[in-house]
Amino acid sequence: MIKFEVVLSPALLDLYDLNNKNVVVVDILRATSTIVTALANGVASIRPCINPKETLQFKNMGYITAGETNGEKIEGFDIGNSPFECMNIDFKGKNIALTTTNGTKCFLAAQAAGAEKIFAGSFLNLKSMSDFLVADAKDVLVICAGWKNKINLEDSLFSGALLNEMMRAVEIKINCDSSIMMLGLYLNNKNEMINLLKKSSHYHRLSHLSHEEDMVYCLNQSITEGIFEFKGNDIKEFSKKNEK
Amino acid sequence: MIKFEVVLSPALLDLYDLNNKNVVVVDILRATSTIVTALANGVASIRPCINPKETLQFKNMGYITAGETNGEKIEGFDIGNSPFECMNIDFKGKNIALTTTNGTKCFLAAQAAGAEKIFAGSFLNLKSMSDFLVADAKDVLVICAGWKNKINLEDSLFSGALLNEMMRAVEIKINCDSSIMMLGLYLNNKNEMINLLKKSSHYHRLSHLSHEEDMVYCLNQSITEGIFEFKGNDIKEFSKKNEK
Repeated sequence: MIKFEVVLSPALLDLYDLNNKNVVVVDILRATSTIVTALANGVASIRPCINPKETLQFKNMGYITAGETNGEKIEGFDIGNSPFECMNIDFKGKNIALTTTNGTKCFLAAQAAGAEKIFAGSFLNLKSMSDFLVADAKDVLVICAGWKNKINLEDSLFSGALLNEMMRAVEIKINCDSSIMMLGLYLNNKNEMINLLKKSSHYHRLSHLSHEEDMVYCLNQSITEGIFEFKGNDIKEFSKKNEK
Repeated sequence: MIKFEVVLSPALLDLYDLNNKNVVVVDILRATSTIVTALANGVASIRPCINPKETLQFKNMGYITAGETNGEKIEGFDIGNSPFECMNIDFKGKNIALTTTNGTKCFLAAQAAGAEKIFAGSFLNLKSMSDFLVADAKDVLVICAGWKNKINLEDSLFSGALLNEMMRAVEIKINCDSSIMMLGLYLNNKNEMINLLKKSSHYHRLSHLSHEEDMVYCLNQSITEGIFEFKGNDIKEFSKKNEK
């Protein structure tokens, strides 16, 4: 039986065993939603970078530079961290170097902690992510990127949604209190996620930046079918032939 | 307006500002429930100790030694960590030295982090704790002891219950996603807390130790009226003359 666990903050990652697990990194607003959108729209790869300086080094190598720090655009970057910016038809086949306050660091932290299989999770590809995890049948560890190590609503909510989606297909072993709580959070709010997120710290932090359109988009469920893996240095669409 | 925040794991404590706040440490199963029960039943003071070795040093000084490691009784100790053991009429006026896996360390961590006012929170004195916090009107930070830094259900549930109780009396400023989630958790489970806790990791960990009676007791709400402060080296009933 698949065991499911949730790490609600990257600061708690060292409490968990990552060995032989499918790890799902989630930063709903907005890194992983943007990553999934970009790759689903034909971007070839996304390289998560630790900071703006590292990101800019890839500009001369033909990468599109993307990202934010503290929710704001970065000087000299081609684009920000909005999923809408990544739908640009000119980006098909291109590579993006991306840095964000929480999400991109979280991919690198999971890799540094020894995770073998790391995926980008989002509501946008919820169903196909769940289908893959169910079929692959390894234990699952969701890592919520949060905000500067604080626990946030949107990533927590996604972990509950993913667990719920998997439970619709198979029996899951839940010996993790965070998972029990997040499943309840999702089930009690699934029909009014936007209203819940309007109470969130992220909303209050970023509402002046006109991110509401992004938020509404990032809560769309299962509008794309791919799954997206961080392997080596890049996040790419998981090869179809490897899917079970 | 009082600001309310919840720290769901002691490992996240350094992300929060403790300055000029009322800090409530909570370890429902069982440290803070036992502390509240002991003091409400006439025990003079409880000294939280970092480990069994330190605790035993107080035995020669007339302290009753109490506690557990990993939920098990400790050799050479007078009693364990059950609230029922602390109702002993012979303990009136006595001092207890207590060590537990999570809760007692959490008091010491809060003090080391610079918290000025630290209280022991439990369902048992929920109403009087809430009344005090509302009247004192300082910002509130709840620290959940969890289990070895992992987030747990019962302490999280209490944080939501305390927030709910305070909100019944005054308007509270919640700019903390954990608080929003825990308020929902409590409101959605308040009538069936026992059933929820039977899914918890703590229950599975300790059910072989016959702690179910303790669990049922520890979920009783507002059956005692005191509030209990950790000051200097000891937890004692908060002096009535200082109460507002």
